Amino acid sequence: MYTLLIGNKNYSTWSMRPWILLKQAGISFQEHWVQFDSFEADSQFKTEILKLNPTGKVPVLVDGELVVWDSLAICEYVAEQHPEKALLPQDKTLRAKARCISAEMHSSFQTLRNLCPMNVEADLAHIGRQLWVDNAQLRADVARIEQIWSERPAEDSFLCGEFSLADAFYVPVVMRFECFKLPLSASSQAYMQKILSLASVQQWIAEARQEQMFVAFDEPYRKRRGEYLKP
Amino acid sequence: MYTLLIGNKNYSTWSMRPWILLKQAGISFQEHWVQFDSFEADSQFKTEILKLNPTGKVPVLVDGELVVWDSLAICEYVAEQHPEKALLPQDKTLRAKARCISAEMHSSFQTLRNLCPMNVEADLAHIGRQLWVDNAQLRADVARIEQIWSERPAEDSFLCGEFSLADAFYVPVVMRFECFKLPLSASSQAYMQKILSLASVQQWIAEARQEQMFVAFDEPYRKRRGEYLKP
Repeated sequence: MYTLLIGNKNYSTWSMRPWILLKQAGISFQEHWVQFDSFEADSQFKTEILKLNPTGKVPVLVDGELVVWDSLAICEYVAEQHPEKALLPQDKTLRAKARCISAEMHSSFQTLRNLCPMNVEADLAHIGRQLWVDNAQLRADVARIEQIWSERPAEDSFLCGEFSLADAFYVPVVMRFECFKLPLSASSQAYMQKILSLASVQQWIAEARQEQMFVAFDEPYRKRRGEYLKP
Repeated sequence: MYTLLIGNKNYSTWSMRPWILLKQAGISFQEHWVQFDSFEADSQFKTEILKLNPTGKVPVLVDGELVVWDSLAICEYVAEQHPEKALLPQDKTLRAKARCISAEMHSSFQTLRNLCPMNVEADLAHIGRQLWVDNAQLRADVARIEQIWSERPAEDSFLCGEFSLADAFYVPVVMRFECFKLPLSASSQAYMQKILSLASVQQWIAEARQEQMFVAFDEPYRKRRGEYLKP
């Protein structure tokens, strides 16, 4: 059975991608939670992760002797090991598209990442309103994501038809948008609702809210956990 | 036949990856060079690229009706279309590793990217010496890359045995190291020499030097083209 090492569910977007992919595909795995204490070299987090992964980062997938790191490589590996799940679309054009938009998400959108970190338990709408006014590059990042979402095959479909690796890559973006309440088109909101209603996403959200931890270096906007908590 | 849109060979690391992969595999393609003038919305570069690729970036691969953007998605597409070329290793463990290190390169090493942009025609050893002293994160980025290179199956092999997609992803790093003359282990230098001696890389270098253009926004260290030119 696979073991997937992940960080805090409230914060770790990169962990969320393969976790959602595995859950949504119904592939069983053991989850190994490595709590964020700090990212200093001597932190408990780094010490534990570095035993397996020289980058010192989550997520990490362990499959017997094989250690796979990096969320995109993990998702490609899982898709390849389970062709019957069609986690990459079988149609050549849609498969290429799934890889284009996933790889684009992997290397881009730095402003969105920096300004709107995922924080599942928080409602930072008041921060989002100000960021939106102040940051043209944030608006450009969001516009590009909305363009990608608008090109899904049908209004009620996932990004490349059925649920795929590409959706797993955009789930954390849905969480960012949902926390900061960025203004989105009706079509984007419909896609977000589709993602938020998935059982795997609901489970992640519930478990994130149970963590009840405050990790200061992931919290540019709150001073303590009680602030701006969702009801 | 494929058409590959690329930017200036002197500067465009992301263009270099699929170009090298295709050349090295002996897959024929038409090259379409889109000159960097500026990255403003109304630049000639953006205008031409945006006709095909909504991200407004190179590289772009055109295969009939299909447009594939993002260097990683392009390389995966090419590898999949040409299984006989084994551009991803056939061995499962090596294939996973090739994807791990390529995806890591795709999303990481931001400090190296920012401080040491590729500049094929220039010798910026004097800049490299100072950057090396001043920047712990640069040294950390390089240390991680040297670790990846040190784990190739044999001293005289490519990163995952035979030449693969992973090497195509690290060729631009070789060019950065070569321009800034960063201090490297003997083993890393051996890998660099192996890459630099490839016919495809030699061709790219020669064509980069023929461009003889000075693109100011890609030149943090030179004031004009004549400065610090390689002999």
